[in-house]
This record gives sequence, C-alpha cells and structure tokens, in this order.
Amino acid sequence: MTIQVAVEPVSRNEAGLAAVLPILAERFGPRFVRSEAVRRQHAHTLTWLANQPPDGVVFAESTADVVDVVKACAAHGVPVIPFGVGSSLEGHTNAPGGGISVDLLRMNRVLHVHPEDLDCVVEPGVTRQMLNEHLRDTGLFFPIDPGAEASLGGMAATRASGTNAVRYGTMRDNVLNLTAVMPDGSVVKTGHRAKKSSAGYDLTRLLIGSEGTLGVITGLTLKLYGIPEAIAGGVCPFPSVEAACNAVILTIQSGIPVARIELLDALQVKACNAYSKLSLPETPTLFLEFHGTPASVKEQSEQFGAIAAEFGAGEFLWETTPEARNKLWKARHDVYWACMGLRPGAKVVATDVCVPISRLAECVGETAADIERERLVGPIVGHVGDGNFHVTMLVDLEDADEVLRAEAFVGRLNLRAIAMDGTCTGEHGVGQGKMKYLAAEHGKGLDVMRSIKRAIDPGNIMNPGKIVAVT
Amino acid sequence: MTIQVAVEPVSRNEAGLAAVLPILAERFGPRFVRSEAVRRQHAHTLTWLANQPPDGVVFAESTADVVDVVKACAAHGVPVIPFGVGSSLEGHTNAPGGGISVDLLRMNRVLHVHPEDLDCVVEPGVTRQMLNEHLRDTGLFFPIDPGAEASLGGMAATRASGTNAVRYGTMRDNVLNLTAVMPDGSVVKTGHRAKKSSAGYDLTRLLIGSEGTLGVITGLTLKLYGIPEAIAGGVCPFPSVEAACNAVILTIQSGIPVARIELLDALQVKACNAYSKLSLPETPTLFLEFHGTPASVKEQSEQFGAIAAEFGAGEFLWETTPEARNKLWKARHDVYWACMGLRPGAKVVATDVCVPISRLAECVGETAADIERERLVGPIVGHVGDGNFHVTMLVDLEDADEVLRAEAFVGRLNLRAIAMDGTCTGEHGVGQGKMKYLAAEHGKGLDVMRSIKRAIDPGNIMNPGKIVAVT
Repeated sequence: MTIQVAVEPVSRNEAGLAAVLPILAERFGPRFVRSEAVRRQHAHTLTWLANQPPDGVVFAESTADVVDVVKACAAHGVPVIPFGVGSSLEGHTNAPGGGISVDLLRMNRVLHVHPEDLDCVVEPGVTRQMLNEHLRDTGLFFPIDPGAEASLGGMAATRASGTNAVRYGTMRDNVLNLTAVMPDGSVVKTGHRAKKSSAGYDLTRLLIGSEGTLGVITGLTLKLYGIPEAIAGGVCPFPSVEAACNAVILTIQSGIPVARIELLDALQVKACNAYSKLSLPETPTLFLEFHGTPASVKEQSEQFGAIAAEFGAGEFLWETTPEARNKLWKARHDVYWACMGLRPGAKVVATDVCVPISRLAECVGETAADIERERLVGPIVGHVGDGNFHVTMLVDLEDADEVLRAEAFVGRLNLRAIAMDGTCTGEHGVGQGKMKYLAAEHGKGLDVMRSIKRAIDPGNIMNPGKIVAVT
Repeated sequence: MTIQVAVEPVSRNEAGLAAVLPILAERFGPRFVRSEAVRRQHAHTLTWLANQPPDGVVFAESTADVVDVVKACAAHGVPVIPFGVGSSLEGHTNAPGGGISVDLLRMNRVLHVHPEDLDCVVEPGVTRQMLNEHLRDTGLFFPIDPGAEASLGGMAATRASGTNAVRYGTMRDNVLNLTAVMPDGSVVKTGHRAKKSSAGYDLTRLLIGSEGTLGVITGLTLKLYGIPEAIAGGVCPFPSVEAACNAVILTIQSGIPVARIELLDALQVKACNAYSKLSLPETPTLFLEFHGTPASVKEQSEQFGAIAAEFGAGEFLWETTPEARNKLWKARHDVYWACMGLRPGAKVVATDVCVPISRLAECVGETAADIERERLVGPIVGHVGDGNFHVTMLVDLEDADEVLRAEAFVGRLNLRAIAMDGTCTGEHGVGQGKMKYLAAEHGKGLDVMRSIKRAIDPGNIMNPGKIVAVT
C-alpha cells in the first residue's frame, strides 16, 4: 500500500459544486472537461502528497474567461485552483476540497516586447523557454530558470527562482506588474511599466508567491536583460562540501558577479554521471557560469580560480564551447531525472530550504549526517550562492517506516534551516507540504497573512488549503 | 496670506486623545513632549502642505516603547504617526486628525553586522550615513542614497531610492526583513536572513512603502555590498535633454552596469554652479559614476564615452580624485538647497514621477514646455537610468494664482506620467500630496489596498489620512 503524507483538509461544498458545474459546462462547452484522466492530471503533484483532483478543468483562453470562472465559483462558494504546467513540488495544484482547475496554458501569447525599456508583456501560460525563443532576435533574454519548463504565471505565483538568481534575482525582482483576477471577479493591474514606484502598497509583490490564494494571474510584465556578450563556465571539484561552501562564501563576499554557482554533492555527481553521460570526479563539485564582456568574464573566472585554489579545489574544468556548456547545464537541470536512476521504483520527493550563506556549510553538513543516520537516499544539490539547497529524496512509498523516517527528516531539515535564521523554502513554495512549518518561521506574521487572506478572499475560494488555512 | 494646498481631512477623536495623553505622560515622563515647538517640528513638511502637528511626541528607545504607545492609542482610537528625520516630501509626518508622533531617532544602534552574509541588523533611527560610517572598517557599504540624511526606517517606510538605484535597486530590493509593531500592538518579524524565500506572503515588501499606515518599523535587516575596488565618474554636457535621454537609454540597453546616471537640465546646472561653486557649461548634463574593478570601470566608461559621442555630447569631464568626485556628488545632492537660491523667498516644492525609459525624453520635454507655458520656475533633475525625474518648483506661496497654476501643473505632470505607463511617484511616496492621483494609477487596485488597510488596521489608527483613505 502506498503511504500518503497528510495535508490540511478542506471540506467540500457539494451544493455549490452542483450549481457551478452546469454553469461552466454551458459557458465553456468543450473547454470545460470533467474526465477523470484530465482531472487527475491537473492535480498531479510531483511529490508524495496524495493526488486530489478538481471536479472539472476550464481551459481558459482570456482574462474574460477567468473572470467568468471566478464569478461563477464566487457566487456558489466553489474553489478555484490555477494551473500552469503542473511542475510545482508542494501540492500547489491539488484540490483538497474539490473545485475548478483553471488551466492557463492556452493563454500563451507574448503580447509586447519593449527592447528600449528591457521589458515584455506576456500571458501567464507562456513558458520561460517559449519566451526566450520569442526573444531570440532581439538580443534580450529572461533569466529566471527554475529548471522545469514552467509557465511564467506559475513561476510568479510560487516566487520561483533557480540557478541564476544569485546574479539576476528571483521572480520577486523581475516582475514589473501583474494582471490578476481577484476573488470577486474584478480585474486588477498591480502597476505600470516604470522601473520603480512608491505609489502605495506593493500589490505586485503581494501576489508574487501567493500561490493562487489571493487571485489568478492572467498577465505579467517582466524585466529583460541583454544577452551577455561573453559567457564562460565550467566545473570545479572540491575535497569536501565545506570547502566548496567556503569557496562560494568568499566568491560572493568578493563581489564577483557570478551568474550561476551550483553545488552538487558526491552522490548527485554520481547520479548525473550515470544519467547525463558525464565523467566528472565523484566528489563535491561546483558548476559555475560567468556573464559579461570577454574581458570581465576572464577577470571573474581568474578571481574565482584563485579563491578555489585557496580551498584545495581540484582542476577547474573550463567548458568554452556553447555545446559543452549546454550539456553541463542540461545535466544540472536533469538532476530530478538523474536522481530517479539512483533508486528505480522509488518516488522522488524534492524539498528545499535556504539559510544565510555563513550557515550553509553547517546546514548542509548536518543534513547530510541526518540522511546517513536515517538510512535515507537523498543527494544534495544547491543554488549555493543564495544559501539555497535541495535534498532530492528517493523514497520507497511502500515502506511505511521509511516514509515516517523521511517525513521526520524533512521536518528536522525545515526547523534546522529556520533555527539558522533561514526559511523552510527558498523557492519551491508552501503549497500543502510546508504549511506546518510556517508557524515556526513566521510566528505572529502568520496571523497577518491570515488577515490579508480573509480580507481579499472572504469566501476562501482561491486555492483553499494552501499557505494559510483560514476557515 | 500663505496659500495651503488641500489634503484629505481626518476627524479628531477628542475623547480618545483626552484618555491617552495622561497615560503616555505617566508611562514616558520627560520622553513624552507636548510643547508646541516640538509638535510642530514633528509635523514639519518640506512642502506646501499645511503643518498639522500631533498632540504629543513620544521619544521611543525600544520596540517595547513603541508597543506601549500603539497599545494605548489602539485602546482609545488615537492616531500613531511614526517619525524619523522628517525629510519626507509629501506630508507623511503630518497629523491631520491629531494623535501621537513616535520619534524613532533614539533607536539608532547598529545591532549586528554579518560580513560573510553581506547583511546587517539596525534599528530604524540609524541614518544611512551613520550606517556607512559604522561599516567603514569592514569594506562594506549600504548603497541606497536618497540624498537626504534620512533614517533607514523612514527610507523603508517610503520605499526610498535615489541616485544609485539604477545599479543597486531601491529599498524594496535591499531589505531582507523588518520588525514592525502592528496596529494591535503585536510585534511581527517579516522574515529571516536567508537571501530568498518562498514561504508565504511577502510581508516585508508589503510594509516597505506602506508609510506607517500598516505598522511602525522598529528593526531592519539590510543587504550590504563590498565597496567597489574602483570608482570613476564625471560629467558630460549634451546639446539637448532629448540627446541626453537617448544616451541614457542606449547605455542601459547595452547592459553597462552604470552605478549612477543623473540628468540635470540647464536651469538646474545654473543653480548648482551658483550654489556649489562649480563652473559647468549651463546645458543639459549627465552626472555619472561607475563601480567595479579598475579594468571594468575603464571598460564601462569607454563604452559610455562612445555612446555619448553618438548623441553629440560635449567633452566628458572625468573626476578621478575622490575629492573632486565628492564635490560633484555633493552638488548633486544639494540641488534642493541650490534651487532655493534661484528664487529667494519662494517655497521649494519637490515632486517626482517615473516613466518607462523609452518615454523619458518625451515626458521631460512636455513637462519643460508646461513649466514655461505656465510661467513657473522648476528646474528638472532626474535619476534617469530608472526613468525617474523630479521637478523642484520654486513657488511664491503669497501668490494665489501662481499656487493654482503650480498645483494644476503637478496634476498634469502626474497624469502625464501615468498615461505614459508610469507612476505618479517613483520614490517620494504618496503621503497626503499624491493621494488624489492613486485612483488614476491603480483603478480597482486601490480597492485591494483599502481592504488590506482595513484588515490590518481596523481601527484606522496607523498614520490615517495617508495613501488610502478609509473611514
């Protein structure tokens, strides 16, 4: 029997659902789908949380469509759950109380590109690679890269980041404004295209990371960057995780504007070697990338080389061709799949925390010891320039004792990060999986979050049972 | 007779005030001051808005002090108005319905500096220069520089930025977490010291720019940066405002990481020459600064030089010594005082807007024509790398017709910026002065702001009559 990890319950409003389903069927015809396969696919979570399907899926094609769904659901107290590509990792797309999933992937137009302002306006179903493909001839790119080919709306909703946040920031820093359908069906645009504003409360940042619990994002204005004239990168093996972390700390402290600096522990390197046909030494390793002019990239990499040598690093293997670099970064992005190969049949359960960089070596060290003590399989990979790291657990869901040990391990990891002045999630978000750690992290701040949720969504219809539980 | 510009009225709660004043006198003794001079000084606004003094001023020395003030005021429905150095420009510190000003300047300790994490923890009354003085031996600095020697708590409350936001961002980007006393007297810490987090609603960003209307900031954790190895800068005259703006656009678009790029129009240069004993050509001029390694600074400045030449710039005057550079930037920071010299006896009324950089030349051009048409005196200076510019009007407050013309001009300027997809304030904030433009800028977003204000401050005691008017 597969073991399921418990989540916050949400009661079903059967009368409301009975009223809403025919309204949506009438309004959306074939764009309202209730087949079990589609419903399960829209609740699929890449975790050990139960699949909790919605009662139906609307394939929205416009903000007006979303308004109609929200108004119908608001009138009858039925949950609305926004859906992008479903790559979130903490049960964000589940429907614990049933309701309507709004699939936004057909809203996939890049509406405007303003090269002179370094911004663009997109619909929420545009994915990051689609956007960069669209931008190809402009010399511009959108940097945020969570690994998955996620939708930009979903990335904003979960405050995503990824490998190059150390240089370019997270979604928090790269969204100029959002358009959102609020729980009463009103459409709000949270700002304009000016690079900065002091004109009132920061609704843009309030919606970023709100995971669909305050409104459905139906449009985004994003910052763009010039494609760097020169990109260089490579891999650098270290004798220990601690040595690698200390090299990262000094690199950041020295102000070297590294574009990516990723740590893979020995087990993760082994998994990548096997999956991505690499032959890296199976020891803690940093993957690096530098962006700039040819001169500045050379300078940055020389500065890093000197720091790495101080910490006993092995030979820095430069990849100078785009092909070799892409192969390396593809391997980095494929760690999820590479990990699967470590233990076929096991479920991949990815969890993330983030700590001040001064505590990183300690936190990773204690976590690795904990993994070993508990006889778990969990390679570690991290966006270490930010102090953010992931444990990708391979869990046998048929083994109740192992599931218990793994759950307890995740609990200790989150509390360890919080105790080190860090956070229980650097980039995956709260969803259902991390709700139980928010009280420890936020204390009375959680009451403020609840009061905001109640004020904006008094009917508690927007993605209920996520982030803050209100009743 | 001096003409006063109208603001949103707030009714006085005489019974509540009668109850609270003796409680605070008992609790704070000589640290609760009710003299007219001190009360007026705590409402002083550097604008044409009326001075609206509070009923008393508490000189707080700890978060516990602030809690006691807020709890007493909450119990009796009396307004609480936080006060730093009073350098805000839109009436933020006024007490339109009376109440208690909480002076936070005695909370001026730098509590922790974490060099390895590039952050520090400060009390709200620390000013930016005090902090940088404290950091001197660490090789680190805090970059945000609004010109005024403002308190860091006030800078966070108004989402301040300034000359080097183009490189380092605004207060929005440089605060890791805040401690705040909420309207019910509870103390909330909005986050931890991890560089990023996806753990729930972004309370840090909600409080930044909330201007004391949601809580009183009593602690801040701020990002720090390594002092650049090399700094270079200078001034570059242009044949027209348009040519200067176009050079700025191309500079930003080329990804040159300029640290400061400031435009002064001809009248502003004239004022600075007179006040700061400079001898710059009295033509539109860019002030620039580059940060980096010696090699990258040289590269950046050469790239800029080539761009400037394309747009017909005159000779780029390099200031290589720190003394000459400081003199130049002191002149830039002293524009407020320099402007006074243009028209002795007139009131300085500084207003700011921000537009997408592609619209900057057009917006500045139309604004300059408007100033001339209305026979106003208003030099223009701007953080043009962000599309943010200021008009520093010199207004004769005895001349009712001129005040009317100036008010109408400010109204057109704000609506012009909003129509160009910009904002009615890039960095000064809303206070009392810009409230009337928020509906045009935010539409239904203003309703969301109001619902947040009502949820967090149901008694409407936190700096009432600012940003959003709730009743």
